[in-house]
Amino acid sequence: MRRETLDDNLTQLQSMLDEMAPLVAAAFRNASTALLEDRHRLAEQVVARDPIIDGHRAAIELLAVETMNLHQPVVAPLRSVVTALRCAQALERMGDLARHIAEAVARTGDGSAIPPEAHALFTEYGARVAAMGDKAVTVLRTRNVVLACELETDDDAVDEVHRQVFELMFGADWTAGVPAAVDLALLARFHERFADHTVHLASHVVYAVTGSTPEEIAL
Amino acid sequence: MRRETLDDNLTQLQSMLDEMAPLVAAAFRNASTALLEDRHRLAEQVVARDPIIDGHRAAIELLAVETMNLHQPVVAPLRSVVTALRCAQALERMGDLARHIAEAVARTGDGSAIPPEAHALFTEYGARVAAMGDKAVTVLRTRNVVLACELETDDDAVDEVHRQVFELMFGADWTAGVPAAVDLALLARFHERFADHTVHLASHVVYAVTGSTPEEIAL
Repeated sequence: MRRETLDDNLTQLQSMLDEMAPLVAAAFRNASTALLEDRHRLAEQVVARDPIIDGHRAAIELLAVETMNLHQPVVAPLRSVVTALRCAQALERMGDLARHIAEAVARTGDGSAIPPEAHALFTEYGARVAAMGDKAVTVLRTRNVVLACELETDDDAVDEVHRQVFELMFGADWTAGVPAAVDLALLARFHERFADHTVHLASHVVYAVTGSTPEEIAL
Repeated sequence: MRRETLDDNLTQLQSMLDEMAPLVAAAFRNASTALLEDRHRLAEQVVARDPIIDGHRAAIELLAVETMNLHQPVVAPLRSVVTALRCAQALERMGDLARHIAEAVARTGDGSAIPPEAHALFTEYGARVAAMGDKAVTVLRTRNVVLACELETDDDAVDEVHRQVFELMFGADWTAGVPAAVDLALLARFHERFADHTVHLASHVVYAVTGSTPEEIAL
C-alpha cells in the first residue's frame, strides 16, 4: 500500500466519523426534546433524518474496506479478522439478551414471568427465534450464503409475532396489569433483538465470504 | 507476517467462533424454556454462564488483535480502520435508538408520550444521556482518554435514573395505565442503550489510541 494513500484514507475516515458523530448526538437531543415537549414535527424530523446517519455509516464502511483492499496481499485474511471481531461482538450481545430473559425469570420468585394469556404467543416467539439462533450457528460454521439470506425472511415472521404481543397487551382483554405488561414488552424486545443479531451475524459471514453485503447480493 | 502463522490464526479464529456460537444459541434456548416452563434453576444457569460467553469473546478479540499485530508495519493504521468500523456501527445504532424515541413521540397523535408523573425523571434522564452523547463526540474528535474513562462513571448515574423509572411505574401511585407503562419502559431502555453505546464508543477510541481497553488501563 502506498503510505500516503493510507494516511489520506485514515485522515478521511477520522473526519467522516467527526462529521457523523454530532448528527447522532443531535438526533438524541432532538428526540429527547420532542419527547419532553410533545413536539411531533421535531420527532418526525429525527425519524426522517435517520437514513442520513445510516448513509454516513455506509460511506465509512466503504472507505474502511477500500483502505484494507489497498493492501492487496492480505485482503481476504483481514476481512476474516474483521468478521471474527464483528461476529464475536454480535454473539456476546446475543448472550446478554438471553441473560436478560433468564434474569426476568429468576426475578419472578415463585410466579411465572409471563401471564397465561401470553403463553401461546411466546411459545411461538421463542421457537422462531431459537431456530434463527441455530441457523446462525450453521451459517457461521458452513459459510452457507443462501442460508444466511434466509434469515432476513425469518426475521419478518418474527416481527409479525412481536406486533401481536403488543396487540395483546393493549387490548381490552388484558387483565395482567402494569408490571406484567412492562416485563412482557421488554421480554419481547429481547427476543426481537436476538433475532436481529442473527441477521447481523449472517450478513457479517456473507461479507467475509463474498466481500459484499446481502443487500448488494440481492440487487 | 509469516503466511503459515496467519493461516493458523485464521483457522483458530474460525474454530473459536464455532465454539462460541452454539453456547449463545443454547443460552437463548434455555432462557426461552425457563421462561415458558417457569424453570428458575435453568434461568439462573443461563445468567451464571454468561461470563463464559464474554470470555470467549475476549479470547477471540485477543487473537484477532494479535493476528493484526503480527503484521507489524501497518498495525496502528489497521487499528484505526477497525476502530472506524466499530465506531460507525455504534453510531448507527445510537441513531436508531434516537429514532425509536422519536417514533414513540410521532405515534402519540395529540397526546404526550410520557405521563406528567414521569416528566421530571425523563427530563433528568434525557439531559444526562444527551450530555454523554456530546462527551462521546468530543472523545471521538479529541481522542481524550481521560474524558473517555469519565463516561463509565456517567453511565452509573444513568443506571440509577433508569432504576427510578421502574420504581415509579411499579409503585401504587401509577395511574397512567398499561400502554403508558409499556411505552415508558421501552423509552427508558432506548435512553439506557444510547448511554451504553457512548461508553462503547469511548472504549473503541481508547483502544485505537493505546491498543488497550479502558478496563486494562484501570488495572
